[in-house]
Amino acid sequence: MAGVEFVKGHGTENDFVVLPDPDGVLELTVERVRALCDRRRGLGADGVLRVTRAASVADAPADVAGERWFMDYRNADGSVAEMCGNGVRVFARYLLDAGLVEPGDLVVGTRAGERPVTTHEDGTVTVDMGPAKVFGHSTATVGGRAFDGVAVDVGNPHLACLVDGSVDDLDLTVPPGYDPVLFPHGVNVEFVQPVGAGMLRMRVHERGVGETRSCGTGTVAAVAAVLDLGGQAGGECIVDVPGGRVRVRVDEHTSTLTGPAVLLARGELDAAWWEALGGE
Amino acid sequence: MAGVEFVKGHGTENDFVVLPDPDGVLELTVERVRALCDRRRGLGADGVLRVTRAASVADAPADVAGERWFMDYRNADGSVAEMCGNGVRVFARYLLDAGLVEPGDLVVGTRAGERPVTTHEDGTVTVDMGPAKVFGHSTATVGGRAFDGVAVDVGNPHLACLVDGSVDDLDLTVPPGYDPVLFPHGVNVEFVQPVGAGMLRMRVHERGVGETRSCGTGTVAAVAAVLDLGGQAGGECIVDVPGGRVRVRVDEHTSTLTGPAVLLARGELDAAWWEALGGE
Repeated sequence: MAGVEFVKGHGTENDFVVLPDPDGVLELTVERVRALCDRRRGLGADGVLRVTRAASVADAPADVAGERWFMDYRNADGSVAEMCGNGVRVFARYLLDAGLVEPGDLVVGTRAGERPVTTHEDGTVTVDMGPAKVFGHSTATVGGRAFDGVAVDVGNPHLACLVDGSVDDLDLTVPPGYDPVLFPHGVNVEFVQPVGAGMLRMRVHERGVGETRSCGTGTVAAVAAVLDLGGQAGGECIVDVPGGRVRVRVDEHTSTLTGPAVLLARGELDAAWWEALGGE
Repeated sequence: MAGVEFVKGHGTENDFVVLPDPDGVLELTVERVRALCDRRRGLGADGVLRVTRAASVADAPADVAGERWFMDYRNADGSVAEMCGNGVRVFARYLLDAGLVEPGDLVVGTRAGERPVTTHEDGTVTVDMGPAKVFGHSTATVGGRAFDGVAVDVGNPHLACLVDGSVDDLDLTVPPGYDPVLFPHGVNVEFVQPVGAGMLRMRVHERGVGETRSCGTGTVAAVAAVLDLGGQAGGECIVDVPGGRVRVRVDEHTSTLTGPAVLLARGELDAAWWEALGGE
């Protein structure tokens, strides 16, 4: 057994198979991504992070320098994705552990452009998530109850709702109701419980997925909503999601997400298994 | 990153983390098993198969020779388990690939005693599953419909129900109803659709788990039930479960299960991650 190298990691339990491919030679087909991410017949993950140079990625944005380390992110269904706040942390942790970058500040190329990232000595990673733009107020419904929320654009649409009482009591097995006029492409819905000064608890229902253990842009939206409701232009909160704890900072220009990134296993995929899945 | 060696494999999509431990030195705590099997923060699996010698397993049965390779099987919740028809195939495939046994016949030690196993050149593995004993007839209910079934003991209790029409139409998200007098400790319920001479399709609801992709003893129970209803003492069927295809042979004395065993990845667990989970 000798084959394709992999690393398994997660950021607040959003989990990934990392595939080092510095020379851009890996034939990463839709079928291979699906098999890798399959939680019974593969390694199992929410997505695949191929580690390569921007120059070798045909659909890399023109404003990403060719020599950048590029996060070629694929969803579990094999489709390409632009950005993932939890994925970038795992990606950066891999670059650092593999000796491909120095500790501290770096820039990661993504399909959403170049992203400033900082690795910290305690193992956490900070990612620049771009601006969080409040664009309205609306309502989500869960089990017949209505929750007032703030509409926030963090590159994708969110509706962050403050909750009286505990977020533990909500049944998120059914997608929350929302206003399809304000959110024509669907919406990620956050339920946010303030638990102290600058401390939030949050659960999230991601559009097309269901409840997840963590959603990076969702935590940014939650903090942007809390600041907006408090009349503040910027600030910082700790956010506890089911998968762990992150720290979010929001100002008028951008936002940052700081959280853990764990690499728990590394190894090789069986060559015959990989080949049987077929190349391009 | 250097640490505990692992292999990831599956048998008809019943998946396992294999931990080679020939000298019986691994501190495999409940917490470590749970973390390994966790599908977000670990590798993810239905269970862990520790590969060691019977002599080093405190609760190995007295009738298992000390020098036998012993399948120390742990459920995802950390509890110990006796036997698993899909797990033994993956275990045997590991022994063969690692050069620990010769191709062909071998004996695997389990908490249910010594099990004869045969590895085949096409990658499949045959496991002796012990006798399948029909002990009555009963009824399962799904969505208000009643299904006649045959009660079969394959070391654990089963109710195998022949279905008119396709098994695809059943909603097994809710546990089927059954007779608690006949099955005081619960029951695994199989829904079996004959699709030709010696060909069955099957779905299974495992007690305490829900619908699964495959259940080794369940396929044996299904074939025993079909033979019983046909008035035959023995015979052989191919059984297609959602996770793949197996072949089951039943006679008056014992039964065998033949099916695939796939090892798809190997590597090392991160030493710091493993240590942080704590020893005994």
